[in-house]
Amino acid sequence: MSDARLPSAGFSITVRLALSADPGAAGRLATVVGQAGAIVTALDVVSSEHTRMVVDLTCDTSDAHHAEQVTQILGAMPDFEVKKVSDRTFLLHLGGKIEVKSKVPLRNRDDLSMAYTPGVARVCQAIANNPDDARRLTIKRNSVAVVSDGSAVLGLGNIGPEAAMPVMEGKAALFKKFGDVDAWPVCLDTQDTEEIINTVANLAPTFGGINLEDIAAPRCFEIEEKLRERLDIPVFHDDQHGTAIVVMAALTNALRVVNKEFSDTKIVVAGAGAAGTAIIRLLMKHDVKDIIVCDREGALCRGTEAPDATKKWLAENTNKDNYQGDLAGAMRGADVFIGVSAPNILKGSDVATMGGDPIVFALANPDPEISPTEAARHAAIVATGRSDQPNQINNVLAFPGVFRGLLDAQARGWHDDAAMAAATAIADCVGADKINPTYIIPSVFDSKVAPAVAAAVREVMVKNHPED
Amino acid sequence: MSDARLPSAGFSITVRLALSADPGAAGRLATVVGQAGAIVTALDVVSSEHTRMVVDLTCDTSDAHHAEQVTQILGAMPDFEVKKVSDRTFLLHLGGKIEVKSKVPLRNRDDLSMAYTPGVARVCQAIANNPDDARRLTIKRNSVAVVSDGSAVLGLGNIGPEAAMPVMEGKAALFKKFGDVDAWPVCLDTQDTEEIINTVANLAPTFGGINLEDIAAPRCFEIEEKLRERLDIPVFHDDQHGTAIVVMAALTNALRVVNKEFSDTKIVVAGAGAAGTAIIRLLMKHDVKDIIVCDREGALCRGTEAPDATKKWLAENTNKDNYQGDLAGAMRGADVFIGVSAPNILKGSDVATMGGDPIVFALANPDPEISPTEAARHAAIVATGRSDQPNQINNVLAFPGVFRGLLDAQARGWHDDAAMAAATAIADCVGADKINPTYIIPSVFDSKVAPAVAAAVREVMVKNHPED
Repeated sequence: MSDARLPSAGFSITVRLALSADPGAAGRLATVVGQAGAIVTALDVVSSEHTRMVVDLTCDTSDAHHAEQVTQILGAMPDFEVKKVSDRTFLLHLGGKIEVKSKVPLRNRDDLSMAYTPGVARVCQAIANNPDDARRLTIKRNSVAVVSDGSAVLGLGNIGPEAAMPVMEGKAALFKKFGDVDAWPVCLDTQDTEEIINTVANLAPTFGGINLEDIAAPRCFEIEEKLRERLDIPVFHDDQHGTAIVVMAALTNALRVVNKEFSDTKIVVAGAGAAGTAIIRLLMKHDVKDIIVCDREGALCRGTEAPDATKKWLAENTNKDNYQGDLAGAMRGADVFIGVSAPNILKGSDVATMGGDPIVFALANPDPEISPTEAARHAAIVATGRSDQPNQINNVLAFPGVFRGLLDAQARGWHDDAAMAAATAIADCVGADKINPTYIIPSVFDSKVAPAVAAAVREVMVKNHPED
Repeated sequence: MSDARLPSAGFSITVRLALSADPGAAGRLATVVGQAGAIVTALDVVSSEHTRMVVDLTCDTSDAHHAEQVTQILGAMPDFEVKKVSDRTFLLHLGGKIEVKSKVPLRNRDDLSMAYTPGVARVCQAIANNPDDARRLTIKRNSVAVVSDGSAVLGLGNIGPEAAMPVMEGKAALFKKFGDVDAWPVCLDTQDTEEIINTVANLAPTFGGINLEDIAAPRCFEIEEKLRERLDIPVFHDDQHGTAIVVMAALTNALRVVNKEFSDTKIVVAGAGAAGTAIIRLLMKHDVKDIIVCDREGALCRGTEAPDATKKWLAENTNKDNYQGDLAGAMRGADVFIGVSAPNILKGSDVATMGGDPIVFALANPDPEISPTEAARHAAIVATGRSDQPNQINNVLAFPGVFRGLLDAQARGWHDDAAMAAATAIADCVGADKINPTYIIPSVFDSKVAPAVAAAVREVMVKNHPED
């Protein structure tokens, strides 16, 4: 397990260079790029003359800074001339990542008279007579709003609605790819709780579900709760429930590997935000009795004033021995660490004080609570949010299947038992013959996952919540 | 020109029947359907045994009532047994008419790292630094919200947001087909003016334009005006501006046919709602000086109290001789009648009192102000909104090209000169060699129209309104 961030296509650049047309030129070029730590993924000759040629060299770099370094190194070579540098990620985003397509033909007057006037009037009238028919005869059947106020986007923080759009579009693309769900981004020009609630409630007739995304805590809790009360479609905050489901799936398999039971474990959670709170709720449903939650100030405990209602609830309902102290102290003897907080808050020596076969989920993005290499020196199992490490905890495993199941059930709400079923379905996608410390969670490209999650969620909703 | 509504695919049914398998059966079946006034469009044998066969008979009918009649006539035949009747329009609407597609590949980890994390973070950061980049790097570049509160849908009236969805989906499909614009329906669960304004303003970061649709007057005027003030993307009320553009295009060509000038014509407009008001504004821009507007109560004139600000403005700015009286009286000597009001409010004898070569646009939907046959007895040119008559005034000719042009210009507003340019572009799609009393407006399937409109709108916006 290497610790440095590996070159990735997310930081891929294409450099157009002019260089001398001797037989060794391509080799020199590729060698220089390799020595700079980038990985050549393509080399295309654009034009070639007697002594000079122009090539497009595409390579993966580690981050934006590294991409610049590589370009500079190439520019400094005596016989290379850098003409242009294109960022493949930016090229891919030009004009946006999703589009709307018609599912019906519109070739002639007959088509038009069925899909639009005059035929459409009859369908409108049928829905006016029975509004619930919208779940059958309109895109409400299959569509989800991906709603954000841009206040807590990835690790970037409060970057606003326009800047949040690329994430929401990516999410919509993933919804389609993995769940065949039609998701549309809705980035809001307000960060006021009441305004967000009213706006989303006003939009609801169009959609069969609401996926809240990257909305800061504690605002996100109130928004979710109030919308649940007002709407007759499921409201799901992915940063909470999506993360909690995938963490629970991974933890289910991790405990299988080390042969422990949920009910006997001591679990330390770092981070009392949206994800942390939802994870703790699901841990309690799994009968975990010994949970300590730490925020920046240390363990949440009774006897000190809580800054908001959520932290108050956490202090009252976790930390059975009312431990008062810092994260390092809380770690002593713990079976599991789950970090959904901030980079580099945990040391290897802290992991060393944990109980036998410790499990460390260091999920802060893009930089985890502890370097996975360091954690692995002491832990039996390590998971992160990073795609270049084993055991990636990625919400993509949950949300497409969850909404597929909710839409197919024509569900009106969202319930913890559906979350539990989804987590189990994901965990069970890792076969008993394959499970091991570096394979506790399926790949995001495992095509079994979304249908399994959808079936599990649908079954629970239809069976346990037929009216909701 | 026949007056009865012709059978149309909008009212197409498929009837599954069992009948005797003799050689004359298919002929008897088709004959009965034809005698019932329906048009057979398909006959498929589903299964056939020695003496009995099952067939699917598809036919166009005139309306829902006629479809039922046809089914009953078939059921009453001694050797026919009706098994099932399917409505093709409803079948086409199952699950909705549009879907979301990813424009980017998501096949593997490299794709994911560019379209989603970690690569997407860099694009988000770039937009956070310069929010206007959202017009380049997100779907804002090409997307439009089709917003309705369901209060004035087609001829159906206030049927609510769910029931309005099939129309808005159809619109979105047409936006894509004719303008390559990605439109998403937004049907709102409120009919409060302030709530609508706030909701749409909150959504605006996602979209490059707002298309208001089927919102009742006078509410629609205030919503449009306030949103224009608040937003930096174009706000276009299709029932007003789309209709006005196409009417103006048709009228331009109609006046060419009868060899009259806008500035010398007397025009009577029936209907002082959204469409009527926008048409009158554009007529004034065309230097028409003699306009009388009639609502249900008769001509709008000075000296009586107006029920709202729009009608007050109309009374003050039209009707130069302050005619007081009914529609029939207003028609005397008029060159043009434009109806955007209600069915059957005009008689042939009213048209007979108009000036030379009268032009009658009877646009009420689905039933016009006067039957086109009746109007044609006295008028030189007749246009309606119906697809089964010549000279169909259809907004589809305007909105896809208008928004294509606005998006390509990265426009921030909407202006009357763009509407004028769009109208001229549509009118000019009818060649001078082809124009005649039954061909004053191009077909909605004329592929020249949308690009011509887009180019005209784009040019005006870039040249006359570079900052807006």
